[in-house]
Amino acid sequence: MTSVQRGTPDRFADDPAFAVHEGGKLSVRPTRSIDSIADLALTYTPGVARVSSAIAAEPELARRFTWAPRVVAVVSDGTAVLGLGDIGPAAALPVMEGKACLFSEFAGLDAVPIVLDTTDADRIVDVVAALAPSFGGINLEDISAPRCFDIEARLRERLDIPVMHDDQHGTAIVVLAALRNAATVTGRTLADLRVVVAGAGAAGIACTKILLGAGVGDIAVADSRGVLHTGREGLTDVKQWAAESTNTAGLAGTMVDALAGADVYIGLSGGTVPEAAIASMAEEAIVFSLANPTPEVDPAMAARYAAVVATGRSDLPNQINNVLAFPGVFRGAIDAGAHTITEGMKLAAAAAIADVVGDELSPGHIVPSPLDRRVATAVAEAVAACARGEGVCRS
Amino acid sequence: MTSVQRGTPDRFADDPAFAVHEGGKLSVRPTRSIDSIADLALTYTPGVARVSSAIAAEPELARRFTWAPRVVAVVSDGTAVLGLGDIGPAAALPVMEGKACLFSEFAGLDAVPIVLDTTDADRIVDVVAALAPSFGGINLEDISAPRCFDIEARLRERLDIPVMHDDQHGTAIVVLAALRNAATVTGRTLADLRVVVAGAGAAGIACTKILLGAGVGDIAVADSRGVLHTGREGLTDVKQWAAESTNTAGLAGTMVDALAGADVYIGLSGGTVPEAAIASMAEEAIVFSLANPTPEVDPAMAARYAAVVATGRSDLPNQINNVLAFPGVFRGAIDAGAHTITEGMKLAAAAAIADVVGDELSPGHIVPSPLDRRVATAVAEAVAACARGEGVCRS
Repeated sequence: MTSVQRGTPDRFADDPAFAVHEGGKLSVRPTRSIDSIADLALTYTPGVARVSSAIAAEPELARRFTWAPRVVAVVSDGTAVLGLGDIGPAAALPVMEGKACLFSEFAGLDAVPIVLDTTDADRIVDVVAALAPSFGGINLEDISAPRCFDIEARLRERLDIPVMHDDQHGTAIVVLAALRNAATVTGRTLADLRVVVAGAGAAGIACTKILLGAGVGDIAVADSRGVLHTGREGLTDVKQWAAESTNTAGLAGTMVDALAGADVYIGLSGGTVPEAAIASMAEEAIVFSLANPTPEVDPAMAARYAAVVATGRSDLPNQINNVLAFPGVFRGAIDAGAHTITEGMKLAAAAAIADVVGDELSPGHIVPSPLDRRVATAVAEAVAACARGEGVCRS
Repeated sequence: MTSVQRGTPDRFADDPAFAVHEGGKLSVRPTRSIDSIADLALTYTPGVARVSSAIAAEPELARRFTWAPRVVAVVSDGTAVLGLGDIGPAAALPVMEGKACLFSEFAGLDAVPIVLDTTDADRIVDVVAALAPSFGGINLEDISAPRCFDIEARLRERLDIPVMHDDQHGTAIVVLAALRNAATVTGRTLADLRVVVAGAGAAGIACTKILLGAGVGDIAVADSRGVLHTGREGLTDVKQWAAESTNTAGLAGTMVDALAGADVYIGLSGGTVPEAAIASMAEEAIVFSLANPTPEVDPAMAARYAAVVATGRSDLPNQINNVLAFPGVFRGAIDAGAHTITEGMKLAAAAAIADVVGDELSPGHIVPSPLDRRVATAVAEAVAACARGEGVCRS
């Protein structure tokens, strides 16, 4: 392995992030040690042959006698990594390892990072489908739009295990949880709100979908060319869906135009929003500015106009962080033996996250801390109960 | 998950192999815990972005700052599992989990079982190639012949990480180690020996190849139709290679015919060898009867004629077990940063295994115990030294 040359100063020594990553962040170990010939004969040949024979005769036994049902594959092609963009599979791997660490820490699930040496959607679908018997769930991660929509949809159709693109639905679940509590703390319901979603990529589209499902009154979705509306030409399939499903007011201008009088800004696009646009929003405005590390709206400026401000940053209040959602969502789906993740399960997850805040709800505390260990348990229970109620579980 | 119904007696309760497999045999855990927002910010965003950026700029840093270089994928399509045959991916998974346990226990490597929902050779090659950035080595396992030869050759050509089909080369390495010591203990050299290899599948072909490379005097390879020779029609590519590379005596009869006067029998085929055939072998014969769980030659019968008898069974002396080879081979290749596994590295592994026996060499002790922890270390050191000597390592 590459290591520090003797006598050469290590140029990574000053950044503790590199120390944490030295040698990688995960380890696979046996659950039982092999100390005797008898152990070997049970864990491996000849004992394992009896277990394999039993599964061959009765495939459902794989859920009891293999690790697959509790293992989540964290799959990426490295095309849309954090704020870094298309950096390829090797460079994406530390992010996927990190995600696997969070699955373990917060949900007690085992997760394996899988980075792919291809960006071809057909090939990604084919590869992940071939791997499916090895895993109990597929967390798609950091795959660029619009390919991510198609890849997820085809894998959901093809596989009978939970598949979720976290950049879409993890973000959407936590945004909905935060917006529920922001509405409550400002004395409104979701139906009262006129929302502007800035960004029509993976997260923007998924947030729009879940907010519609949760009963938000009106939404305008904007991409870099302005608000999506049915009169625009050349929209991708998902943008066409958004244009047809939102914007009841028929807005056709820029995102900044749409903010005038709006109750909620949800920034998922990067860039910068001018102060005048935030000032033009309704009374008791809600600003979620989620670009990392630099929010679209300066949080200090936003606080002068808005009643509630949230970001993606860990050093500010109200951190909208996917880690509040994905560990519990997969844990709940797996515990229930669900073969899919439904819209209902995502809504249940959002409600569970919001409810953990409870009596501590305030404008500066609309979501739990990412380290709050109660969250994953509450989400898992809510998701599992929903899955059972909807009848999407194995018998 | 499937679990025992209350009040229903558990039909698996009497077999400890099932207890060992309950819930699976592996676990993935973070190497460092996440107890604070600061930990989260280093393991995941925003800290991980600095590591990913560094790797994007300088790909070789993935070897230092990700887990990939020390992770072996144990890949199978479930078509040739132990003595069970084509049982499919789900039923093969316990075997691959077991193999991953052995990588951890004996070589301190991390291994991930990957079972594939396809038996198409082109698709297997394509899938494994796509996964390659996630791993530091590929252990192909229990893939049926003749597809296994083609799949391994194509992946070796395509990837710059070690790829080894263990059913071929793990077996071949341990057979060579055992035969070296069997020759020594009976006062002969490898060049003195006339060997009959019974079986022209994955293990039979690989054993033939390594024995030729090690200088064994003459080999006759037999499949179910008899000894391979250049006059036979319709041979597969690898059998044609074997026919051209062996059988200098020009034998054309059955395997039993070939045993008359032979020094060594290596059984890799299953079935039963008649007592008269063993009795017809040369003085001081060597019998390796490796079918599991039922050796082709009854070991007690063999002992009446042969000077050395070995089997694949853990309850008999001289167990020929792949676990003596594969952990150390991959460990050595990975430690040296080798991008491939060469014939020289395999020969070095065999010599290292044989040498561990040392002064304890006797007809009943020609190979170390599978639990002998010295073996993997010795094999890894020998393989790494060979790789460095051959110049097949990353700079």
